[in-house]
Amino acid sequence: MGKIKLHHVAIVVEDVERALGFWRDTLGLPLHHIEHNQDEQVDIACLPAGEGAIELVAPFTDDSGVAKYLAKRGAGLHHLCLDVGDLDAAAARLRAAGAELINEQPKTRPDGTRYLFVHPRSTGGVLLELYQLP
Amino acid sequence: MGKIKLHHVAIVVEDVERALGFWRDTLGLPLHHIEHNQDEQVDIACLPAGEGAIELVAPFTDDSGVAKYLAKRGAGLHHLCLDVGDLDAAAARLRAAGAELINEQPKTRPDGTRYLFVHPRSTGGVLLELYQLP
Repeated sequence: MGKIKLHHVAIVVEDVERALGFWRDTLGLPLHHIEHNQDEQVDIACLPAGEGAIELVAPFTDDSGVAKYLAKRGAGLHHLCLDVGDLDAAAARLRAAGAELINEQPKTRPDGTRYLFVHPRSTGGVLLELYQLP
Repeated sequence: MGKIKLHHVAIVVEDVERALGFWRDTLGLPLHHIEHNQDEQVDIACLPAGEGAIELVAPFTDDSGVAKYLAKRGAGLHHLCLDVGDLDAAAARLRAAGAELINEQPKTRPDGTRYLFVHPRSTGGVLLELYQLP
């Protein structure tokens, strides 16, 4: 199996600009870009941190999964994403172990990144995203 | 200011061996070591993931900070640690911005790593650890 890398940590926030006041302006992380993601109905600010990154995720509607998470749990750590290299092999191992995948088949982002989410019930409470980079 | 790197993500778990059943055995992360940390009263399994790492943290008593967190919030993402290079400079910027540091002065681990924690009230809900590596 390939070498797994920590890709990003996603933090759910009320407001991206206010969150940047801490993570960029006070702490000093660089802001790479802000993505307006219609699929998930969130704005995502990406701040590279070495080989990995921190993503600040803010819902812009009230009924997305992230919006409901924010309403229920409040702002804070949301999910962890690992670059697993071969996503199909990782998914096969997870299925064989009985893990619950939120999307059974990998989805593909516009940049070609393939991803799926593993349910917190199968990881011990962590929403886990797995990436295969293009 | 120096280049900030994602150092580790800590996940609080009930039991390290059971958690390794997922993160090591199913997912395939390598286990580097398990530390029995008397100061924090936790066992910590360190699993390198590229430049960063995942730490599985399990309290072995009922009255530590981590034990109380686990009892209140359940297992899941616990904190995020960034290697900031110059910890005193980072702490000075945080203080100047009015951020609340859990330990006002950096502490030093046996291996020489200096660290401090920033309160979730100042980060938007994230318990944030900052490292200066030896």
